[in-house]
Amino acid sequence: MIILVLNCGSSSIKYQVLDVESDSHKLLAKGLVERIGLKEGDLTHKPVGKDILKVHEPIENHTKGIKMVLNAITDEKVGVISSLEEIKAVGHRVAHGGEFFQASALVTDDVKEKIRSLFSIAPLHNPANLQGILSIEEVLPGIKQVAVFDTSFHQSIPQVNYMYALPYEYYEKYSVRRYGFHGTSHKFVSRKGALFTGIDYLNSKIITCHVGNGGSVTAVLNGKSFVTSMGFSPVDGLVMGTRSGDVDPSAVLYIARKENMTIDETEQMLNKRSGIEGLSGVSSDMRDIDAACRAGNERALMARTLYYQRVRQYIGKYAALMGGVDLIVFTGGVGENSSDLREEALRGLEFMGVQIDSEINSKIHGDDAVISAASSKVKVAVIATDEELVIATDTFQIVNK
Amino acid sequence: MIILVLNCGSSSIKYQVLDVESDSHKLLAKGLVERIGLKEGDLTHKPVGKDILKVHEPIENHTKGIKMVLNAITDEKVGVISSLEEIKAVGHRVAHGGEFFQASALVTDDVKEKIRSLFSIAPLHNPANLQGILSIEEVLPGIKQVAVFDTSFHQSIPQVNYMYALPYEYYEKYSVRRYGFHGTSHKFVSRKGALFTGIDYLNSKIITCHVGNGGSVTAVLNGKSFVTSMGFSPVDGLVMGTRSGDVDPSAVLYIARKENMTIDETEQMLNKRSGIEGLSGVSSDMRDIDAACRAGNERALMARTLYYQRVRQYIGKYAALMGGVDLIVFTGGVGENSSDLREEALRGLEFMGVQIDSEINSKIHGDDAVISAASSKVKVAVIATDEELVIATDTFQIVNK
Repeated sequence: MIILVLNCGSSSIKYQVLDVESDSHKLLAKGLVERIGLKEGDLTHKPVGKDILKVHEPIENHTKGIKMVLNAITDEKVGVISSLEEIKAVGHRVAHGGEFFQASALVTDDVKEKIRSLFSIAPLHNPANLQGILSIEEVLPGIKQVAVFDTSFHQSIPQVNYMYALPYEYYEKYSVRRYGFHGTSHKFVSRKGALFTGIDYLNSKIITCHVGNGGSVTAVLNGKSFVTSMGFSPVDGLVMGTRSGDVDPSAVLYIARKENMTIDETEQMLNKRSGIEGLSGVSSDMRDIDAACRAGNERALMARTLYYQRVRQYIGKYAALMGGVDLIVFTGGVGENSSDLREEALRGLEFMGVQIDSEINSKIHGDDAVISAASSKVKVAVIATDEELVIATDTFQIVNK
Repeated sequence: MIILVLNCGSSSIKYQVLDVESDSHKLLAKGLVERIGLKEGDLTHKPVGKDILKVHEPIENHTKGIKMVLNAITDEKVGVISSLEEIKAVGHRVAHGGEFFQASALVTDDVKEKIRSLFSIAPLHNPANLQGILSIEEVLPGIKQVAVFDTSFHQSIPQVNYMYALPYEYYEKYSVRRYGFHGTSHKFVSRKGALFTGIDYLNSKIITCHVGNGGSVTAVLNGKSFVTSMGFSPVDGLVMGTRSGDVDPSAVLYIARKENMTIDETEQMLNKRSGIEGLSGVSSDMRDIDAACRAGNERALMARTLYYQRVRQYIGKYAALMGGVDLIVFTGGVGENSSDLREEALRGLEFMGVQIDSEINSKIHGDDAVISAASSKVKVAVIATDEELVIATDTFQIVNK
């Protein structure tokens, strides 16, 4: 069954076309639409086994972008299907499902209304995600659509782990609580990691570290998310490319007062001007940071150490909350590729039964692998995440119910 | 040598009179001045071995309050010294020493200026602390005074542990960083705990949990503060009576926007309306919370569990940062008295070598004791803190240099 997977941002669309069956799946094409709404837009279409197609032209809105995607995938030369009727369903990544969605859902009017009701909590993502759904309705009327939420895996988190110690009325009035994100990734790599290392998923303590430009750590207890480092927003937790992660809220208010910032400007600072970039003054990209570190840039070194150590702190914190850990999984751009991150995130954790095989670890850049020593009580694995595959298989299962 | 110890708040003065020698010390009296600046003030004077004195009258300002204290301690009936000339020095608790003070300091014009320069960072405490120093100058001209800072023990924290991942310019322009508080207490109980359990203080990994209405956890590595849970402000870290502790800064900004709060009102919410009280809706006092829990109040139960678990999270986090832990110390009002807190804060930590002797633990309410099992790799102790004693001995040492 041909499934189109969409991840719509405010000015971009990431997509994949997959052929999914109950016991197999095949990627046919993937691509990216960029600079929607700007003067000049770009489509990059990468069909498997065929030439890459690049189109450079104005893309006024998401509907136009989606039309370009559909043209590309049915194109005579670079297409991967012969007609649009072959597409049986569309799966969407949706950032925020609030407390409504414990699982992926077939899109209905009610589902769209709920996604819309969360705009004020997820102003950067949910509007674009909903726009993608509406554009598909326009271009492929009647097709089944499925919403796969970044938050739904984390809806199993118990109340004591999702409440902040703020006045309770704000949870009641405004739904202020920990939600967590990257749920699709944490679910995928925790399950695959358990399988990969022979651990009984439904009876296990797993810590998954999704580390990239964005990042979060999740404690997965007996196959369910127990707590995660992103909170009400994606600012919380790990140090990220441009996001602060954990920070004293009074420090933020102090800066806002001194700089006479509005709430929007303060949010902007936490989201766009903090993290590795704000601290180092160099870049939000770990490759630039690594280069600066090699050149002896002290602030880059400090920022990188902070970034690495924050992951280690969360491993300790979540092991303490679960009463131990059986498996630690690294994933995400940096988690999969940087042996240095993994080495530093695990440094000194022998006291809790973690022994890394540094030689194996140093060779793993992007491949699935076990990097703990044979004698290690706690297993450590690197697992490449594949959120699009989860979206495609969730979509397959829901439309075949 | 007679030393007067003062802890001046904005409307109160706590005091002790001690007789300190290089190898001994004796408490002569302690007391409290309350409601300074209000219509009716109170002095409660408790001399050791004599009757308690209570005075109820208007106390316009700190100078008047201090005069009342000096009258009480030299009073014929309830006094503990025969004349003011016996007082050789005054030691002050000062909340914030910024990056200026790595240790306690003899008060000079320069020291006063530095305490004043930190008013904007510590608006609730430093002005009152300085006022206490100035009032003593007025009432006991020429006497030696020593400032003992809540922050100075934490000045050993390495940069990577005191920086937030915020734009670096705000550290340079506004000194926004982690400072930590309760330093006098963490220093005292870590050292005493090491002595008490036969651990080599200068070669050890200690986690001190100061838990009360306010609270913080410190990792003490080889006798020096390595990182602590209070940060730029005392809001950060543990859940407290009315302070939030760790919270997603975006959640705070979201509430401020929805409620149309000013920065001051937002600070007020984090400091005065959050924590155990905000979450439970019951009280900031653990005795009230315990009563509500016994009556089956679900929000009180949730708040208490959160309060307990936050301590456990910090133990895990700081053990991971230090690469293990040799000794865990509990202190502070709740830390010394609540066996439940200690039981819950240590629950499930066997994986990192912690074994508690629950029977011994259940009997310890306020006394120094070892509560880990004989076979426990990690030692656990309860140590009553005595910040006034540290202030008195620091003062003794500095004026005798």
